[in-house]
Amino acid sequence: MERYYFDWAATAIPAENIANCVNNTAFVPFGNPSSIHTEGKAARQALKDARHRCAQVLGVQPQEIYFTSGGTESNIIVLFSLLTKPRRFADSDPQQKTNKSAVFLYSAAEHPSIRENVTSLEHLGIPCASIGVEKDGRVSEAKMEKALEKNPNTRMAGIMAVNNETGAINDIKALSAAIRKKQNSAIHIHCDAVQALGKIKLDLYDWGIDSASFSAHKIGGCRGTGLLWLKSPITPLFRGGDQEKKIRPGTENTQGAINLAESLENHIQTETSGYKETEPAFQAAKRMKTLIESLQKTGLFTSIPADREAEDGRFSPWILQCAFKNNNGTIIPGEVMVRALDEKGFAVSTGSACSSADKKRPILEAMGLDKELSLGGIRISQGYSTTMEEINLLADTITALLITL
Amino acid sequence: MERYYFDWAATAIPAENIANCVNNTAFVPFGNPSSIHTEGKAARQALKDARHRCAQVLGVQPQEIYFTSGGTESNIIVLFSLLTKPRRFADSDPQQKTNKSAVFLYSAAEHPSIRENVTSLEHLGIPCASIGVEKDGRVSEAKMEKALEKNPNTRMAGIMAVNNETGAINDIKALSAAIRKKQNSAIHIHCDAVQALGKIKLDLYDWGIDSASFSAHKIGGCRGTGLLWLKSPITPLFRGGDQEKKIRPGTENTQGAINLAESLENHIQTETSGYKETEPAFQAAKRMKTLIESLQKTGLFTSIPADREAEDGRFSPWILQCAFKNNNGTIIPGEVMVRALDEKGFAVSTGSACSSADKKRPILEAMGLDKELSLGGIRISQGYSTTMEEINLLADTITALLITL
Repeated sequence: MERYYFDWAATAIPAENIANCVNNTAFVPFGNPSSIHTEGKAARQALKDARHRCAQVLGVQPQEIYFTSGGTESNIIVLFSLLTKPRRFADSDPQQKTNKSAVFLYSAAEHPSIRENVTSLEHLGIPCASIGVEKDGRVSEAKMEKALEKNPNTRMAGIMAVNNETGAINDIKALSAAIRKKQNSAIHIHCDAVQALGKIKLDLYDWGIDSASFSAHKIGGCRGTGLLWLKSPITPLFRGGDQEKKIRPGTENTQGAINLAESLENHIQTETSGYKETEPAFQAAKRMKTLIESLQKTGLFTSIPADREAEDGRFSPWILQCAFKNNNGTIIPGEVMVRALDEKGFAVSTGSACSSADKKRPILEAMGLDKELSLGGIRISQGYSTTMEEINLLADTITALLITL
Repeated sequence: MERYYFDWAATAIPAENIANCVNNTAFVPFGNPSSIHTEGKAARQALKDARHRCAQVLGVQPQEIYFTSGGTESNIIVLFSLLTKPRRFADSDPQQKTNKSAVFLYSAAEHPSIRENVTSLEHLGIPCASIGVEKDGRVSEAKMEKALEKNPNTRMAGIMAVNNETGAINDIKALSAAIRKKQNSAIHIHCDAVQALGKIKLDLYDWGIDSASFSAHKIGGCRGTGLLWLKSPITPLFRGGDQEKKIRPGTENTQGAINLAESLENHIQTETSGYKETEPAFQAAKRMKTLIESLQKTGLFTSIPADREAEDGRFSPWILQCAFKNNNGTIIPGEVMVRALDEKGFAVSTGSACSSADKKRPILEAMGLDKELSLGGIRISQGYSTTMEEINLLADTITALLITL
């Protein structure tokens, strides 16, 4: 059966020209980049070149780029390194935690690689507090300001750029400004930008943040490869060799770094500073508009949130979260839709692949959705090779399916 | 110039058949293994198959295998997850640390990915103590017993199987027995087995340990791929998605896992339980004997330690640490030797590539070597494709070189 892939937010189809360049020793020097001999030098130079290419696409300085094993590790490095310094353990009585200011604020809609670490951070004696999101899944400046007022000891804020389940775009620049105005520059602002890379305009300096996480496999690159952008170096918690200026120990993944540079150059239209809204994003928005309008015609479609419009600047045009009713007016469970579409050849998902094992939808619940609607949500996400033809096929298939469910 | 590679302990030359299988989407399903659709299922199955293959080669159960991004990450997961539970921070007054029992004991010759984390662990309020090594670089049962007596609160011991700079083999089975006898099974024994994999006989159950770390790129596999073996599951400190039974969050690196399985099957002779000393190890020992005997003929060669014999069961035949004198009797700095050999086409190293940036040799110093000899040490390491011809060429080149230095 012909397959149609609409789960790009979980992972992208690897780009062929990128796949071919990896692990080709003619192209990737195999030496350990930390070695001083000829093989080591060649690998070191290749790594340096890859770093420069990544920096150029992202519009930042090469020395601000640290290669990691992915988005999750990038988030973990920043969270644990910054929040465990200085020591705060002696005074961290869990009984008194509720009376205390949090030191880490995170949006309630964060990816599990931020949100799920809160348990561990609190276990280490680091009080955390979530910032509620509005009904559209975005963090408002008002909610941010309120959270800061309530938590005067805040030392770090974690706000994602684009939500992985709904596509909701946070106005990182405005939120940063609110943080800087309210408190001072001592608050470290970390941005999980995994779903923003290659999808929306991205300007790290302009956003006013201190660090950001990226992943290669979401843009057609290799698994196990990611990037941490740090405006200024931090003192790492996790040690080992001196690789990546001690920020990320472990033998450098030269092939992964080159692959990431290739991926960035292939899929991101750039001038000098980051992603510019050009042809791919324009086409994605056009396809998303067509999809939403076609689904609306069924009369059984609800976008999530319900007021998301066919063209809506609050959302990434690459991700749609939505639910469907059957003819009795009952919401069809998301899992039923996913399986039914899978049988017809279409890959869509419910929420994050990272948590598809359990049936909780914390992001949708944070938006105030009731349980039934939450469990009805499916995610349709497109990528660099998605065509209007595939979009039309998907809309037609869903329309036909709804009659039978 | 023809190149001869003798730095396999830093990284191996990638095996060609392995390199070719990676990132070939016909071979590696691209889907996210956590997704419930067809693409996800295919990836999940591929990951499961890779896990089974790795388990079979290592002679353990598949559910004990966790894929990670490498040896360093495997070590970090175990160290931080186990030692931060239960919370021990409230009572961790740094002033009193010296009066207290350590909870983590590690050999003074550990790889930086264990040793360098001690600073961070102590910062988190976890007292650590090193176990001195004997002159041959190995941990003796006597030293282990003494350390345990001195530190009754020990909850974890970290002992490497094969030293990355000297090839010294710790008798893990005997050390485990000493720990179990002295204390009880509550002490978690972790073994960094990166330099043992594919090099010496490896029997994880027989060793009596609780966990072990492995890396793919040391045996011809991909960078950014490793393995953590855990006899029993642990509560992880670092969270994210539910991948790898929550032990290692982040989208699974399917291609890396398959590549690791290929590497293990290619380079490790196995019956049912782990590595059996067969042809490759036998040939490596023969080549090492030839090398040492040839170098001894120069009269300017010292093995490190000095009493290492041409055939010596205390050392891995894949790694030699040694130093050379010039005709005035002065020890030639290791860096000079490395550069001189590099110019002749031979890649050797001083110590660990991971710490080649600074000039300290903590492992050699832990063995009681004086500063001059420490800084004279070079590491010659061989791999699966090293030939006797290359060994003879290396010995001849060193012999000729010594006349000029």
